[in-house]
Amino acid sequence: MAGKKVLIIYAHPEPGSFNAALKNVAVDELSKQGCVVTVTDLYAANFEPRTTRKDIAGALCDPEHFNYGVAAHHAYKDGRLSCDIVAEQQKVCEADLLLFQFPMYWYSMPAIMKGWMDRIFCQGFAFDFPGFFDDGLLKGKRAILSLTTGGTAEMFSSTGVNGDIRRFLWPIQHGTLHFCGCQILAPQVSFAPDTSSQEERTKMVEAWTQRLATIWQEEPIVCEAPWYFGQ
Amino acid sequence: MAGKKVLIIYAHPEPGSFNAALKNVAVDELSKQGCVVTVTDLYAANFEPRTTRKDIAGALCDPEHFNYGVAAHHAYKDGRLSCDIVAEQQKVCEADLLLFQFPMYWYSMPAIMKGWMDRIFCQGFAFDFPGFFDDGLLKGKRAILSLTTGGTAEMFSSTGVNGDIRRFLWPIQHGTLHFCGCQILAPQVSFAPDTSSQEERTKMVEAWTQRLATIWQEEPIVCEAPWYFGQ
Repeated sequence: MAGKKVLIIYAHPEPGSFNAALKNVAVDELSKQGCVVTVTDLYAANFEPRTTRKDIAGALCDPEHFNYGVAAHHAYKDGRLSCDIVAEQQKVCEADLLLFQFPMYWYSMPAIMKGWMDRIFCQGFAFDFPGFFDDGLLKGKRAILSLTTGGTAEMFSSTGVNGDIRRFLWPIQHGTLHFCGCQILAPQVSFAPDTSSQEERTKMVEAWTQRLATIWQEEPIVCEAPWYFGQ
Repeated sequence: MAGKKVLIIYAHPEPGSFNAALKNVAVDELSKQGCVVTVTDLYAANFEPRTTRKDIAGALCDPEHFNYGVAAHHAYKDGRLSCDIVAEQQKVCEADLLLFQFPMYWYSMPAIMKGWMDRIFCQGFAFDFPGFFDDGLLKGKRAILSLTTGGTAEMFSSTGVNGDIRRFLWPIQHGTLHFCGCQILAPQVSFAPDTSSQEERTKMVEAWTQRLATIWQEEPIVCEAPWYFGQ
């Protein structure tokens, strides 16, 4: 939708990868619609995933009893977070839609993307007390996961060896993005591209492109336990 | 139990933290029993959480179509994984018990520990096809999570604001550690140390010490969906 702002947080190191193809069509399709698209390419930026004292510029309020969460909260309020965090928070602030593009690693995000969440979504910026779940500070934004898997759709079905994929998304979609106030769009799961034919891969890219064409009309999921675990 | 080998994977940067206290009593108690205890102190080692081409020494088998999982599998078989990965895999090999000590970040592990799993548990070493879940290559080992939370036990109960904490552990305990063949001991959850009194914190450390005294007699959980999500 023209004028909408999208931040794509992208976690794959290879420009020739299937994840890169999915990211590229998202940039193209959303730009074609007139959206303003920004990409955080985590590997290209060599993004720092570790939460350390270096994230806070200047003197620490309590260096003897350093607590990352508390210190980051204070530093956010005082404008003393490190430049890379501030830059990402600015992009998040401006975005109407946060789109996470990643390969599933160990039934979750790659560490580099987990570190982005650990460092960017600090208290005061993304949530507060009060100010979480439906009242989270990112209220009004939408978020969507576009992920690839090693296993097939059958393996991630309720009767498959891994069980329903939705169970694995609870900590990310609900525990993190919904906690920060985002409304969650249904995930785009591209199953097992590595073991699919070129034709199947092309179909998955096309399906994503087609979905993006009407993404602004979509209703968010009801991001509560029944969506993940059934009634 | 005398002679048993324990690897503690520890993810907290501060020696004065509550996580450090829990790690320290585990080292003391298990050493007192005659166990051989090794600690991987992830922050002290500035452990690399990012999966990159640097993890593979020498020429890549298919640099044009680099796929981390495939390349790491080949490099493992050829003895060409980077030194830090090899050193950790050696420690895992020798361990009877893997003990993960960490503060919960975004309802999961800190990125630095996620990166340890992403990089150390490669195909060929920790799992294979076949060779996963009950036949995983780490079969015969036990694993336990000892974690601290921001929220209270009530908040992580089935009627609390976060829901049952077990749901959040599915990707880690089942999806990762059980997938690699480990038997899982019930997690040790120390709830909300930051907002507890000194007396309550002391009690939590003592409870952990007491549990460790008989940890070798414990039966693993039945690490399947009902433990996490109920019947």
